[in-house]
Amino acid sequence: MSLLVKGGTVVGPTGAQPADVLVEGEKIVALFDPAYSQTVQADEVIDAGGKYVIPGGIDAHTHMEMPFGGTSASDTFDTGTRAAAFGGTTTIVDFAIQKTGEVVQDGLDAWHTKADGNCHIDYAFHMILGGVDDESLKAMDSLVTEGITSFKLFMAYPGVFYSDDGQILRAMQRARENGAMIMMHAENGIAIDVLVQQALSRGETDPIYHGITRPEALEAEATSRAISLASVAKDCPLYIVHLSASKALEAVAAARNDGRNVFAETCPQYLYLTLEDQLGAPGFEGAKWVCSTPLRSKHESHARDLWKGLRSNDLAMVSTDHCPFCFKDQKELGRGDFSKIPNGIGGVEHRVDLVYQGVVDGQLSLERWVETIATTPARMFGLYPQKGIVAPGSDADLVIYDPNGTTRISAETHHMNMDYSAYEGVEIQGRVGTVISRGTVIVADGNYHGRKGHGRYLRRGLSSYLV
Amino acid sequence: MSLLVKGGTVVGPTGAQPADVLVEGEKIVALFDPAYSQTVQADEVIDAGGKYVIPGGIDAHTHMEMPFGGTSASDTFDTGTRAAAFGGTTTIVDFAIQKTGEVVQDGLDAWHTKADGNCHIDYAFHMILGGVDDESLKAMDSLVTEGITSFKLFMAYPGVFYSDDGQILRAMQRARENGAMIMMHAENGIAIDVLVQQALSRGETDPIYHGITRPEALEAEATSRAISLASVAKDCPLYIVHLSASKALEAVAAARNDGRNVFAETCPQYLYLTLEDQLGAPGFEGAKWVCSTPLRSKHESHARDLWKGLRSNDLAMVSTDHCPFCFKDQKELGRGDFSKIPNGIGGVEHRVDLVYQGVVDGQLSLERWVETIATTPARMFGLYPQKGIVAPGSDADLVIYDPNGTTRISAETHHMNMDYSAYEGVEIQGRVGTVISRGTVIVADGNYHGRKGHGRYLRRGLSSYLV
Amino acid sequence: MSLLVKGGTVVGPTGAQPADVLVEGEKIVALFDPAYSQTVQADEVIDAGGKYVIPGGIDAHTHMEMPFGGTSASDTFDTGTRAAAFGGTTTIVDFAIQKTGEVVQDGLDAWHTKADGNCHIDYAFHMILGGVDDESLKAMDSLVTEGITSFKLFMAYPGVFYSDDGQILRAMQRARENGAMIMMHAENGIAIDVLVQQALSRGETDPIYHGITRPEALEAEATSRAISLASVAKDCPLYIVHLSASKALEAVAAARNDGRNVFAETCPQYLYLTLEDQLGAPGFEGAKWVCSTPLRSKHESHARDLWKGLRSNDLAMVSTDHCPFCFKDQKELGRGDFSKIPNGIGGVEHRVDLVYQGVVDGQLSLERWVETIATTPARMFGLYPQKGIVAPGSDADLVIYDPNGTTRISAETHHMNMDYSAYEGVEIQGRVGTVISRGTVIVADGNYHGRKGHGRYLRRGLSSYLV
Amino acid sequence: MSLLVKGGTVVGPTGAQPADVLVEGEKIVALFDPAYSQTVQADEVIDAGGKYVIPGGIDAHTHMEMPFGGTSASDTFDTGTRAAAFGGTTTIVDFAIQKTGEVVQDGLDAWHTKADGNCHIDYAFHMILGGVDDESLKAMDSLVTEGITSFKLFMAYPGVFYSDDGQILRAMQRARENGAMIMMHAENGIAIDVLVQQALSRGETDPIYHGITRPEALEAEATSRAISLASVAKDCPLYIVHLSASKALEAVAAARNDGRNVFAETCPQYLYLTLEDQLGAPGFEGAKWVCSTPLRSKHESHARDLWKGLRSNDLAMVSTDHCPFCFKDQKELGRGDFSKIPNGIGGVEHRVDLVYQGVVDGQLSLERWVETIATTPARMFGLYPQKGIVAPGSDADLVIYDPNGTTRISAETHHMNMDYSAYEGVEIQGRVGTVISRGTVIVADGNYHGRKGHGRYLRRGLSSYLV
Repeated sequence: MSLLVKGGTVVGPTGAQPADVLVEGEKIVALFDPAYSQTVQADEVIDAGGKYVIPGGIDAHTHMEMPFGGTSASDTFDTGTRAAAFGGTTTIVDFAIQKTGEVVQDGLDAWHTKADGNCHIDYAFHMILGGVDDESLKAMDSLVTEGITSFKLFMAYPGVFYSDDGQILRAMQRARENGAMIMMHAENGIAIDVLVQQALSRGETDPIYHGITRPEALEAEATSRAISLASVAKDCPLYIVHLSASKALEAVAAARNDGRNVFAETCPQYLYLTLEDQLGAPGFEGAKWVCSTPLRSKHESHARDLWKGLRSNDLAMVSTDHCPFCFKDQKELGRGDFSKIPNGIGGVEHRVDLVYQGVVDGQLSLERWVETIATTPARMFGLYPQKGIVAPGSDADLVIYDPNGTTRISAETHHMNMDYSAYEGVEIQGRVGTVISRGTVIVADGNYHGRKGHGRYLRRGLSSYLV
Repeated sequence: MSLLVKGGTVVGPTGAQPADVLVEGEKIVALFDPAYSQTVQADEVIDAGGKYVIPGGIDAHTHMEMPFGGTSASDTFDTGTRAAAFGGTTTIVDFAIQKTGEVVQDGLDAWHTKADGNCHIDYAFHMILGGVDDESLKAMDSLVTEGITSFKLFMAYPGVFYSDDGQILRAMQRARENGAMIMMHAENGIAIDVLVQQALSRGETDPIYHGITRPEALEAEATSRAISLASVAKDCPLYIVHLSASKALEAVAAARNDGRNVFAETCPQYLYLTLEDQLGAPGFEGAKWVCSTPLRSKHESHARDLWKGLRSNDLAMVSTDHCPFCFKDQKELGRGDFSKIPNGIGGVEHRVDLVYQGVVDGQLSLERWVETIATTPARMFGLYPQKGIVAPGSDADLVIYDPNGTTRISAETHHMNMDYSAYEGVEIQGRVGTVISRGTVIVADGNYHGRKGHGRYLRRGLSSYLV
Repeated sequence: MSLLVKGGTVVGPTGAQPADVLVEGEKIVALFDPAYSQTVQADEVIDAGGKYVIPGGIDAHTHMEMPFGGTSASDTFDTGTRAAAFGGTTTIVDFAIQKTGEVVQDGLDAWHTKADGNCHIDYAFHMILGGVDDESLKAMDSLVTEGITSFKLFMAYPGVFYSDDGQILRAMQRARENGAMIMMHAENGIAIDVLVQQALSRGETDPIYHGITRPEALEAEATSRAISLASVAKDCPLYIVHLSASKALEAVAAARNDGRNVFAETCPQYLYLTLEDQLGAPGFEGAKWVCSTPLRSKHESHARDLWKGLRSNDLAMVSTDHCPFCFKDQKELGRGDFSKIPNGIGGVEHRVDLVYQGVVDGQLSLERWVETIATTPARMFGLYPQKGIVAPGSDADLVIYDPNGTTRISAETHHMNMDYSAYEGVEIQGRVGTVISRGTVIVADGNYHGRKGHGRYLRRGLSSYLV
Repeated sequence: MSLLVKGGTVVGPTGAQPADVLVEGEKIVALFDPAYSQTVQADEVIDAGGKYVIPGGIDAHTHMEMPFGGTSASDTFDTGTRAAAFGGTTTIVDFAIQKTGEVVQDGLDAWHTKADGNCHIDYAFHMILGGVDDESLKAMDSLVTEGITSFKLFMAYPGVFYSDDGQILRAMQRARENGAMIMMHAENGIAIDVLVQQALSRGETDPIYHGITRPEALEAEATSRAISLASVAKDCPLYIVHLSASKALEAVAAARNDGRNVFAETCPQYLYLTLEDQLGAPGFEGAKWVCSTPLRSKHESHARDLWKGLRSNDLAMVSTDHCPFCFKDQKELGRGDFSKIPNGIGGVEHRVDLVYQGVVDGQLSLERWVETIATTPARMFGLYPQKGIVAPGSDADLVIYDPNGTTRISAETHHMNMDYSAYEGVEIQGRVGTVISRGTVIVADGNYHGRKGHGRYLRRGLSSYLV
């Protein structure tokens, strides 16, 4: 079964040019100069005239069905990956979890069980290490051989995920040896917990205090500390997740300038939403935007600096940290105590669009859009060139994106399992058209043609970014 | 006439994968998954098994037949472009020259006359402005429409090329409006000339004093000053040529970190050669390596920092500043007075190899090699996607590079019109195999199949790097 | 004749403590613990109870009777030094001038002639070099032996004062040898002149354009360049005059951090006045505040950063750059063309008060006040310990300052020869009481007891700040 | 009883000048111009001709009789303060200790008991907080009113002294309110302990591994972290103890440049001794130089940078961290396991000399010597102007220092209770002559005239350095 995507402009990480894409089965098998492909035959032809043809989006940071504070993230692998597909994302990398006291392999098995047979798009796993010890260090080695080549540690959440600096150092040393990437939740949670308790004891219980008690300085500090520890581990590869603040970016930029293997992602929420306008919404409304790291003040230059970081490659990519909770019954657990609000924002469906809006707004070039949502995630996390590029031999994960369409984001129309949208009413000057996953059209004209179970587990290699 | 390059690994700026490349006439018309292309027919098939297939190299900084101090660079467009072809470079961007007191268009016409009908590979021009005034500012606008979209100014060489800071500012303001790139020779020539006179008056006449009288601080100063002036010109795009020193790199990195449209190149001589070992060679031998900016001290970290800058993209690319002079009769003009030695090193033939050696040495990734020698030059100077990428629709400029071959550089075997080699005896663990220019095989198995006049003039667009 | 200053708190550069000061003739001869000095006899006793006793202020930057654009600064050495005395300043260092094309010694002689017999307080000279050549370099050496140990160069004002970078380098090299300090007017005047002509040609003639055409970037650039040139001159001592802008301060701070012999002053106008509120005053009113470097924008953090710089010692002292012009007939020369407005602000009378207000406002400590207005100027310019400290053996230059008094600045009450005040209506929460110059009370209770000719020329030594 | 120190050159923090010093009882009561004091009578006259008269040294960091790993520092308050006196130090600030689990006031009481009646020179206390909790926070407030205005926390030594980041933050917040200084042992002890265990398990047990397992990066990290936490505590005053490494200095310098209340000391051992030459001495010899922070590599620029920091005031002063252990029976506890070697170097006797040698070597000015060993410690820790300055009203703590003498350091001649000297054989080109403590000559001509019990406890005020 062959498919020809015809007449479009293929956008890659270094530029755009007209080309026709021939798919056979699950693979791209040829790219043609349009002037030459008149005679190419295919079982099915999709007209991409006037549209961009890009590699399917890769969201390298999602938390499907993640347990948190007595509840769970509201998207299952089924609902979440289906929503992702609607938004032009054809691969996710989700976080399997070992909590403090648990066994690594058990956590991974649990995640395979949740995902297996339920995904609409391809998926891979990072592993959260909630307890670094001799046993989990050994597990790191074996997971790398199974295609799990990145491990996330937390400098916050003692008793649940927290690793102390000695544990972090040991995990980094191991990663240095086996080639894995250490991913870091970089917030000084020990100091933050003091600020949280002090705020609560002063009766400061509204959602905005979630942000106020997690100041920029404590994200920047933890980011710097992680970078220092990685240097002690002889330049272990380090990836800072959900970077939200200017000073944390400065720390990453300095390390990169120094030639270090240090990388970072940001998320759409930090590019568009703010402490005052969202987290500080009247009453308990702000709970919708409780996530960690928190939204930052609009009176500072965070969003502007993050866009700049994306342009300069100090920020490698945009992921979502998709971790949705419904407002009713979930977010509401924290009424009267912001520290009990489940942490997370859902956005897996909107990332491709929200970053594209940056192109429209003059923040990014068209090619840097493709790079930050697809090519770099693939290269960073060992999926390239299977994913992340429109090239012969690569998986036929394609998105036909219409620069003349528009997308209006709303809880009424989105496909994530959430009773609100963090981006309600936002309008994007572009639109995901046809979405193809491994050669199969799964979204077309806003209609769903995919199926649960189509998505396959991806064994990942090591990052391409290490010389 | 069709040509199929079969069995190779195509290396692009984001990675490598096996693919077969079909050429029709002067263009690449298709890329195929090798598993699929068994049935593809072509008039000629080239076996690239076990080899890399890369876009033809682009050397964005050459000076063919450039007059200098009563003599001229020893390579004509004929000899120089032929040598370039041997080294896997299929496009050069040469500098047309307006000297102080001359008319811009006259200088350009002269360059067209020199090049027209004489080039073996495609070529384009930057324009050197040796005298910024109302007339030359007007000429900038018209040249941009003719495909000359970059203008080089000099902070050195008063009376010949020198522009003062007011002239630089005016040219930058104009470039800000018409979208052109300002290229800068960033050395404080006014201060350097004092040091040169002082050295000569002390009897310090050997070639090494050429380097000693051009200290790092005066390259860094000029680089910083150019960046400041560009900021006063509302962030005019700025490109620093032949960056050689750590502190100049720091200035560029700081500007880039700040989100500025500032770029820089380095050259192979700064990556491999040093003040002490080459410029300080016994007797007058060092004259071979007199170039400006000069070679830097091996006791400092310049070369290491430049490789780091190439990795981090603070240095965008590697150009040669190819400006060859023979030792006999040319370099010898400066016996007894280093300031009379013609400035320049020839290297257009060896750039692709010398940067590849960085891959072998673990300095760069394979894809970054391709990016720094081909893709980025094309994007930076408005030639992409016609040049710089192996993609359908692009010019069929291809190099088949053999990672198992070796190349020994020597004046006895090189093709440049020089009676010595700056890299005599250097061995590269790789080898340029077949070279294809616009669909024509011009080099194969070390034999030349090209011809003078094959190369065409390229009108360039604006840089792709400006958001 | 002896004089005892009794009951006060002596404030020195490291702190304050009660002490009685005994003066014999022109010198301080003893300091006593008040508990011990009950029996000390003196011809005259001044009660300083409840007041601070500080070393007489030293204003290291004045321009008495300076010719500028067809007129002259309106204070003579007579009127200017008398006004200084009223404000608690007992020493000035004025700038003798060699303009381009003139002979250094002639300029110095002219200044001696102007000052000799006319000064109310002690005075010394810096020398402005408007034309660095072999002859003036020789003159530097001889002037150093005559007690003129600092030389000011200009990176602006071509044809009048401007030195190019080669001239600057040569003067710095000489200073490196003879121990003198190079003082620098650090603005890129060549680029500024382009902006000025462009503004005028657009009809932008109001005083505010004086500031707009001298952007921060061009002060910072020149400051950095001067620092670089000083490094090429093997770390020649460098002193940046009238630093006004945050980014220039950053350049100085970086050099100081790097251990360099780099120093800077700021002036009261940059601490209190702004581009918008003063230079941008309606109509031609802003001409009152035309000075170079110009007042900076209140929407940026300049004043805050300058106070910080004074605290951290990145700014060594506060001088006035006193260069008064009357509004009528002088400033008015620039109606319709801001570039013709005589450059300068008068303030020699108010420096001690204006910096003291910083103590009241919590910007500086009491001891740092004394350091920045007296001790550091003395140490920086080779007058210590004769001046700048209340200590036995030092000149009896004393100011009794009343922290409970108030001072209202106004043209109606000031003693400078100006028909307006740059600080009209400003109120200081402190007041200069008695002023003593070399043992003679010259100001008491607001009445003048000094006389023209009391002030003596001071031969200066080298700076104390160079290790 | 009066005493006249006659004919010397009084050196203060801003310069030197001839002056005679009259002492009555315990106080300086007058300073005289020598030309004037011919007639001054005194019971005793000391001839200081050709010598410097400086304020008595203040060593702000000592650990007399400190328990450590089953033994105690070998100097008692008796032997240690007597040795200090010999070296020209007339005040120490020692660290009273609360270990984890103990009560603050108990620790302080114990220290008073040790010191009371045993000291030869005046003394004060800082308080070590080994366990920040509600009770110790309350104790901070009351100690401030008792003259203990600085509190030391440890980022190392879990279970003994360690505070986590939450505890540090709480103590800093309290200090911000009560005006106290937080002193910080800034090493990431949690990560270091991992490195130590790994080294021991590899059989790396020699003393040099003490240094290797405490890398610069982990001192710099902790220093940066402390600075960040102080910023979260709204710029609580912070003082980094025993700073030893270039990158830690960079962090302090950056904070100071930013206008922060951040200060640091270094110690003589970091200025003169190195990882390789001392800690890496053959066999177990290196144990003599085991201290934390450790000696740093001579192949890096630490010592040079520390001297630079002293010049630029990024380093405020030189303290000793005097914590002596005998080689026999004490240091030997760590044979076969470097982690069991008692940490500490004795040097209270040599600080004034060792810093003076920096003056001889051109590292510091004479006045900066006095500032870093006496004036700044007094101002920093609330002892000024009682101590730290030669001024009427101040305590008569004086050292007559002979720039023509020499001092040869040796265990055979030193007065500390140590069986070796860390500076064995070092020769100083200067010599402590007469030492006067509160008006009493305690050392003269190398003979001791003081007595146990002469020294008094000093209640300290808040730091003078906070605006």
